[in-house]
Amino acid sequence: MEYKLLKRLMHGPIDFIADTEHWIIFLDRDQKNLGTCVVALKREAKLLSELTLNEWDDFKDIVRALESALKKAFDVTMFNWGCLLNTAYIKIPANPQVHWHLIPRYREPVKFKEIIFIDPCFGKSTLSVAGKKLDLNPEIREEIIKKIRDNLTLS
Amino acid sequence: MEYKLLKRLMHGPIDFIADTEHWIIFLDRDQKNLGTCVVALKREAKLLSELTLNEWDDFKDIVRALESALKKAFDVTMFNWGCLLNTAYIKIPANPQVHWHLIPRYREPVKFKEIIFIDPCFGKSTLSVAGKKLDLNPEIREEIIKKIRDNLTLS
Repeated sequence: MEYKLLKRLMHGPIDFIADTEHWIIFLDRDQKNLGTCVVALKREAKLLSELTLNEWDDFKDIVRALESALKKAFDVTMFNWGCLLNTAYIKIPANPQVHWHLIPRYREPVKFKEIIFIDPCFGKSTLSVAGKKLDLNPEIREEIIKKIRDNLTLS
Repeated sequence: MEYKLLKRLMHGPIDFIADTEHWIIFLDRDQKNLGTCVVALKREAKLLSELTLNEWDDFKDIVRALESALKKAFDVTMFNWGCLLNTAYIKIPANPQVHWHLIPRYREPVKFKEIIFIDPCFGKSTLSVAGKKLDLNPEIREEIIKKIRDNLTLS
């Protein structure tokens, strides 16, 4: 079930980072903003109104742990969080599954494993440059995941 | 204090809809997506990690009540939620204040008070058409607020 939900969200390999009782965290395929993650609910749910207090409570802990981990790992300036679900509605019938996008934002360039990452539009939404994606090779993605995990403390 | 926080978020009049213990809900000035709202934390907080469990719990109730109210009021298809805080970082020093954008999305045109509202990009983020805004006159904004309030049940 979990795997089926993830396959619906991801196009390509699933870069698992960690999970909690209710949520699974994985690395977004697009890494133009270093450390961009997706946090998906493990059970099926179509909209945020359906979340239980326990699921929100668990999500609250992820927000804190993940912002802290990314800050330590990559010196992130600030964070964008969004639950949009737009693409699930392109098809009819729509097939949404609750998930969050966490996009780290950087005022200054950041270097990781000899790659310099430059936030394409700091101070604006990355959706203004949605067509521009950075797809890294599996070895680098694995290094990013390792760096996040090394700094991540989930209760 | 609350008023000062709101003045920092809003450019123009503050179209108050409702408030709860921890959050204040107001109508976004841009109404190209009918019923677009902002939900702002009443106390000062710079990032989502700072929210307490009580504030998340309160927010959970707002998500449910507001999605339900907008669905009943305007037959919304689905909802985008985002906590971005980007514009607060254009200036140095940055001056962020935690708030959420709730953008109702419509597969079909919707008519309200003889105005036909057409979602400019259903299935995509409205940030892809960020330059396009719909600023309505105060009388219509008041009618939208009234319609939301008539359908809103906050615990």
